[in-house]
Order: sequence, then structure tokens, then C-alpha cells
Amino acid sequence: MFDNAEIAHEVDKATYKKKEPQLRQALLDAQYQLLRESKFATLILIGGVEGAGKGETVNLLHEWMDPRHLRTYSFTAPSDEEIERPYMWRFWRKLPPRGKVGIFFGAWHTQPIVGRATGHLSRGELDARISEVKRFEKMLTDEGVLLVKLWFHLTKKQQKKRLEALESDKRTRWRVGPQEWALFKRYDKFSKVSEHFVRATSTGAAPWYVINGADPRYRALTVGTTLLAALRDRLDEKTPSKPGGNPPPLLPSVDGRNVLRALKLDRKVSEKEYEKKLEKLQGRLNLLSRDPRFKKLSVVAVFEGNDAAGKGGAVRRVFQAIDARFIGSVPVAAPTEEERAQPYLWRFWRHLPRKGHFLIFDRSWYGRVLVERVEGFAEESAWMRAYQEINDFESDLVSSGIVLSKFWLAISKEEQFRRFKEREKTPHKQFKITEEDWRNRKKWDDYERAVCDMVDRTSTHDAPWTLVEANNKYFARLKVLATLADAVEQGLDRVGK
Amino acid sequence: MFDNAEIAHEVDKATYKKKEPQLRQALLDAQYQLLRESKFATLILIGGVEGAGKGETVNLLHEWMDPRHLRTYSFTAPSDEEIERPYMWRFWRKLPPRGKVGIFFGAWHTQPIVGRATGHLSRGELDARISEVKRFEKMLTDEGVLLVKLWFHLTKKQQKKRLEALESDKRTRWRVGPQEWALFKRYDKFSKVSEHFVRATSTGAAPWYVINGADPRYRALTVGTTLLAALRDRLDEKTPSKPGGNPPPLLPSVDGRNVLRALKLDRKVSEKEYEKKLEKLQGRLNLLSRDPRFKKLSVVAVFEGNDAAGKGGAVRRVFQAIDARFIGSVPVAAPTEEERAQPYLWRFWRHLPRKGHFLIFDRSWYGRVLVERVEGFAEESAWMRAYQEINDFESDLVSSGIVLSKFWLAISKEEQFRRFKEREKTPHKQFKITEEDWRNRKKWDDYERAVCDMVDRTSTHDAPWTLVEANNKYFARLKVLATLADAVEQGLDRVGK
Repeated sequence: MFDNAEIAHEVDKATYKKKEPQLRQALLDAQYQLLRESKFATLILIGGVEGAGKGETVNLLHEWMDPRHLRTYSFTAPSDEEIERPYMWRFWRKLPPRGKVGIFFGAWHTQPIVGRATGHLSRGELDARISEVKRFEKMLTDEGVLLVKLWFHLTKKQQKKRLEALESDKRTRWRVGPQEWALFKRYDKFSKVSEHFVRATSTGAAPWYVINGADPRYRALTVGTTLLAALRDRLDEKTPSKPGGNPPPLLPSVDGRNVLRALKLDRKVSEKEYEKKLEKLQGRLNLLSRDPRFKKLSVVAVFEGNDAAGKGGAVRRVFQAIDARFIGSVPVAAPTEEERAQPYLWRFWRHLPRKGHFLIFDRSWYGRVLVERVEGFAEESAWMRAYQEINDFESDLVSSGIVLSKFWLAISKEEQFRRFKEREKTPHKQFKITEEDWRNRKKWDDYERAVCDMVDRTSTHDAPWTLVEANNKYFARLKVLATLADAVEQGLDRVGK
Repeated sequence: MFDNAEIAHEVDKATYKKKEPQLRQALLDAQYQLLRESKFATLILIGGVEGAGKGETVNLLHEWMDPRHLRTYSFTAPSDEEIERPYMWRFWRKLPPRGKVGIFFGAWHTQPIVGRATGHLSRGELDARISEVKRFEKMLTDEGVLLVKLWFHLTKKQQKKRLEALESDKRTRWRVGPQEWALFKRYDKFSKVSEHFVRATSTGAAPWYVINGADPRYRALTVGTTLLAALRDRLDEKTPSKPGGNPPPLLPSVDGRNVLRALKLDRKVSEKEYEKKLEKLQGRLNLLSRDPRFKKLSVVAVFEGNDAAGKGGAVRRVFQAIDARFIGSVPVAAPTEEERAQPYLWRFWRHLPRKGHFLIFDRSWYGRVLVERVEGFAEESAWMRAYQEINDFESDLVSSGIVLSKFWLAISKEEQFRRFKEREKTPHKQFKITEEDWRNRKKWDDYERAVCDMVDRTSTHDAPWTLVEANNKYFARLKVLATLADAVEQGLDRVGK
């Protein structure tokens, strides 16, 4: 992997002087075309060893390209707002929108490599991180992000020479202390881990370019040429290639039975019983939210369901149980302009709560495999790969300590008809029923199929779906509250350990 | 001010039971109308004494209205990302967009009142804060935000009774300790400061509603009725009232002389001198940015100027001097959908940098008094009041320790013509010159007038404009760099003290 970068590369001054202006102009042209067309975002990852010219490269790119449409972020110590959210949140919030170029100076690759090289991560843990990184980068490239990953390398000899040169110069001597030599002693260890990581995360869509950083001119021309080629490839693409290819088919329905039809939708409780149990469950949820351990936890609850299944009413009962300062909701509607300029999941990531908070998603990322699938708003390849992307996303949430509950509120076709009619008759509910609702209803079977596939593919051990029989609103609300309270209680127990 | 709230108010159960359902329905209807029409945002401020039902009120509003379109924020300890930015940043970032309701549980009023009551603020400082608050709230209401400010009061007797009642009940005894009684001892002090603050910040457009909080039913009905009236007033408005009225005229130009015409636009330096001085100035700026004190500072530089005046080139020379990780820029174009749903300045506030960073605004908030004024995109009342709003905004920046530099790059009409023609001739510059540039050029005099008025009204001691003679690009760039370096140096000196 590092073989080519182990060779001494050099570019003489004359060659550089000849090539640099053309390269620079071509890069600038590509950048402006990227900006004008705004079809995709470009994200450059910078990795590699100390002293191999990472910082110099970033500064050079700022000089070559128009810095007004380029943004560099270095990821050192996370802020407290970042610490309280899943690990990937800090990267998501800095992703460049379509048309722009982002440079990440150190990114998601830094921590696993350092962790393994310093012995804080086991080999197995490293491999788990590698899988995560690969899945994440695949999602990015599938979503159209042009990912250019540059790894800067120095041979052991070059590194030693560099440190000695710095030491022998009065002006730079301060830059080399015992720490730098200690790091050098671990060169082989770091090199081995890096090589493993770089190899394992070099995929067809997002390979690492390993560049020897010893010679500034060679380094500069190599970086420029690599970036230009990557940009031109994408900019000149006539018909953008579809990611995913032909997805394998979903599980067929042979006997007409499925998880929705197996539900006893008419399960009910009386009003009296409801009142009594509601108060009890809300009290229980309230107490749980005021548990001192809750400060270390956050809760994300997803509500999906048939139109008129009573999502709003169930959500309100949850809100009633929690102090208003610690609960919020995200009503998911059409994405905004800024959201459309980002990968699909960006608009959900941005809302993730800090510790000590509940967040309700009223409809959610499942829109992609429900309405977008059924109505044809998303291509098959896009919603098919969404199952995996969603599972990865939810796994990020859960492993960061978020309690995740997902509810599908199910009513029968007859009950929906009754509720639609009732809404039409009630003056202050009329705005809740539109032509679109009637149109959606005609596709009942398609939606049912989509829901079953969704449950099939995204009900995981860590993030199971709760199917809620909702023909009777009382029953549905109680089941939601009880499920949520159980989940929070289990979350608190985990924190307590 | 607190007179009505000193009276014992009570609502009996029967009255409450009769009125509450109607009120609730009416509030819900108003909320849905607000959401559907999305013409303005509603922001409810909650203030007042401990135990007067602030939290209960917020929870009640969550119950009465649809909590999915309502969001409550409590402002306790700021996060580190907030601490590193101007005081008001944390409030700006939580402002509700048009169509939504936001509740701020404690807001910009909390700190001044507590500060004064505990002796940390002098009377003079308090009055300065009051002026700031008034100007800020005026800006919000001028921008169309419906601001409903609720202050919850308890008489001294009621407060004492409340504490004693809590103390005498086994289950609530823990809620009253020495701290609570110590606070009670300062009742008069707090009451005096609060009364002063509430009176001083009660303006026509944003009065405080002082409500006695002792009786929950009275409190609830009063809050609901107040909020409903405020919402209905705005929702039922046939022709929205224009804020500002007839603004007083600007300073007339009698003799044809002005700050722009007084500039010697042709000031120049030779290429050789430029190269030498450029390196020196960039080196100086670089050293300043690496000064350890710079970690406590941030720099905001605004670039405005005639079309083709060389903003891009000047900005690039600044970028070259600074490590790419610590500098970014915001190219200001048309506002996005999310930005249009907020007060005008929101889209600039959101980008403010953390400490240790440079941020370049390539065009800026001055668009309102330049292009929006000249092209008629903003009404006269809107751009006229913008001068004051901008001064207030910049004063927030400067007093939070931000180094603010504002550059107007000025070229002559002839020089602009020459540059336009040159752009048209140079293939890779053609995209930089459009019909719009030629159209703007026809309004040269109008723009000149707008620039002079802008300088007149917004060149302040803390945030002066630097007019840059830019017919010669070399001269212009050097002047920008030297001015910026001086400003950063002065900023560092202030930190150092």
C-alpha cells in the first residue's frame, strides 16, 4: 500500500515552474464549474504522518483555488456540544453542501488509528471501526459526495532526517523535543496500523491516495493532479453512474401473511381504565426523566404510521409527561433548500439532542423507504440502499448511548375511512384532511408492502420497531407510553452500571 | 408596574372548567393558522420570580397547543461554543422560524436582573443592558416577530406562604433549604430591580404582561387569554402595519463632494515594491495569528466594494497569510429558505466564528443598505432602520471581543469599464461578468449615494469603515493587509491587558 510512497520522489524546480500555473488554472476552472453547476459536494480528507506536509498542502489548496468557496476544518478536541452527541455528529455538521469544497484535516480516521497504535483499541475494535468507516464513506459517495482521500507518508529514514534537520537549525530546534522522538520510536507501530487502516478503507469509490511528502514540489504536483483528475472525472460525466446497481430483491410475500396483518388492530381499553393507566404511565415516565442518571442519557422516539392513525395524539401524551424544557419535536416535512444540498440523512443528524433531552421525530428518515418508495420520489437504488444506511445511522445513535424507540401506529383500512370522514365533518379538523390523504389511501397495499419490508430490514436488536395496534386510540397511547418508559428504564440501568 | 399583580386574584373551579376548553381550542386554531400562513414567528418570553408558576405555565402551553410546532428552550449555563461568541448568539440560534412558536424560559433579561440584584452590575451598567435589550427587541418586532413577554409575580407574603407550605409538607420539604430562604431575604432587592427592568423594557411593540402566579387557575386563564389576543391581533391584521413609519431624511449632498469623491483612487505601488511589502505584511499577519493571545480573539472582516473592484484578489491575499484551519469565508448570496424565515441578521449571526478564527464576509449585512436599497428589494422603512440595527449588531460583536474590520474597495467608473471589458475578453474570466453587472453600472450614482450614506451612518469608532483606493490592485491589497494587521495587533493588546 505504501510501496510507491516509499520510493524517493523528486520534481525539479523547472518542471514545477512549468506545470504549476496550468494545474492551478485548471483546478480553479474546475472549482468554478463545480460551484456553478452545484451538482455534488467535494470533500478532501487529509491524513498521514507528522511532518509529511499535511498543513502545507491544505494551505496550498487555499492558495490555488478560490478560498471563498473552500472550507477547512481541523478536528481536534471536540466541544461539549459535540461530546454529548454520537461520534459522527461533528463531521456531519461540517459537511460541505453541493457546489462547495470541504477539507477535513484529520477526520473519522484519526481516532481509530491513534487508538490502535497506542494500544487503546484492540484489533477487533479497530476492525469494527473500519467497517463503520467504510459504510459511512459508502453512504457519502452513494449520496453523490466526491470523496478525495489523501494520505501523506514519510519513510522512516525521511522522518529521522527531517527531525535531525529541524534540530540542527537554531530557528526550528524548539519544534523537536522528547515527545517528537518518542513518537518516532513508535514509527513502525504507527506505520503498521496506518497501512492496515488505509488498505482496509480503500474502496473503489473512495480510495486513499498515498503520497510521499518529503519533496514539496512532488507532493504539490501529485496532490493537484490527483484532485484535478477526480474533479474532472465527475464534472465531465455525461450520465452520472447510479450507485448500487441492481439491488437484490426483497423477501417475497407468498402466503399473504405479514407482520401488519398479524396484528389484532381492535385491541382496546375502556375510557375509565385509560384515564387511570395514562396518569400512572405518564407519572412513571416523568419520574424516569427526572432520575439523576437521565442527565447522561438522551431519548429519540420515532413516530410513523398510517394517515390518521393518531400519531399526534400519542405524541402529545408523551409531551405531557416531560418537562417542556427537556423535550422537543421535529415535524418532518419536505426538506429545505439547505437540506437538499446535503446527503439524505443530514437533515436528521442536525437535530440530534444533547444529553438530558427527549426528541420526537414526527415522521422520520423512514420517509425514504415509505412515501418516497411508494410515490416514486426516490429511485429504487436509493431507497434500497437506505435500509442499510438507516441501520448504520441507528447503530451510531444507540452505541452513543441514545435510547431509540420506533413506533408504527397501525389502523385498519375501515377505521381510516371512518376517521377521514369524521375529519371532513368536524370544522376545526378539516384542514387535517386533504386530497392527498385520499390519494395515499388508494395505494394502501403498496404502503402495506413497504411497511412490512421496512420492518423486515430495520427492526434490529438495538433498534426494534414497536407495532402499535391503533384502532383504539386509548390502547395505542398506553402501549406507546409503556414501551417508551420501559426503554428509558433500561437505558438508565445501562448508565447506572 | 406590579400593582395589578399585587392584588390577590382567584378563579373558581367552575369558571375555569367552563372557559378552559374554549380557550384551548381557540389557541390551537390560532397556532394552526400561524403554521399554515407562516407569515410571522411567535416568541414567548417567560420571566419572573421563583415559584410563581413559570415551569407550570410552559408545560400547560405544551398541553394546550400542538407541541410538535412549539419549542421551549431554557437558557442556563452556556455551552463552550456559546461562551466563545457574543452574548446574544445563543438566543439567535434558537429563534423560531416563521410559522412556529418558541418559548424562551429565561432569556436575555435574566442575566442583567440577577447581576444587578446581586451587585455584580452597577446601575449604569444595568441601564446600558436595558438599552441593548430594547434595541434588540425592537429589531425583532420590526422584523415581524410576535413577541409575547410574560412576567410571573408573587407578593412577598405569597412567597413566604409558599415556602412555608412547602416546608410543612414532608414530600416537598427538600425543596426549601437555606438557599431558598436566603433568596427570600433578598425579595425586596430583586423586586425593585425587576420592577425597574420590566418597566424600562416594556415598549409599545413588546410590553411585559405582569401576572400574579399564586392562583394556578387565574394564572392559566390569564396567560391563555393574553397569548390568544396577541396571536389573533396579528393573524387578523388586514394590512400589516409598517414598522418605522416615515423615517427622517438622510443628510443631503449640497456641494457634490463626498467621502468617495474625496479619495485619490489612483494611488499606486510598483510591482516590485508590492512583492516586497506583500510578503512582509503577510508575514506580519501570520505571526499575529500565531500569537498565543490570539486563542482568545476572533476576527471578522467585511469586504464590500464596486463590482470588479478586486475584492476576491484582496481576500485571497488575506487567506494566504493565515493557516487554512483558522480562516473561513462566507460568500453572501441570496438568502436560503431557512434564512428567509428569520430576521434579516440571522443569516450573519449563524456564521460567527469561535475564538482563534478569522472569518471573511465577502459581501455582508450591508447588502440591505446597498443593493437592496438601490434596487428596491427592501422597503425604505426596512433599509432605513437597518443602519441602527447594523450598528447594534456590530457593537455586540466588538464588545464581545471580536476584531471587526470593514473594507470598501473603491474604483473609478472608467477603471470599472476597463475591467469589465477585460473580463469579457479573457476566456476563463467571462463567467465573472454578466448582464447584471452592466445593469448595476447604469445606477452608478445611486450606488455612490448609498455608499456615502452607509459610511455616514455606520462608520463608528468601534467599527470604522476603511475606504480603499483600488484602481491599483497592488495598492489596495497592501492597504487591506496593513489595516487588518493593525486591527489584529490592537486586538491582541487589548487581550493582553
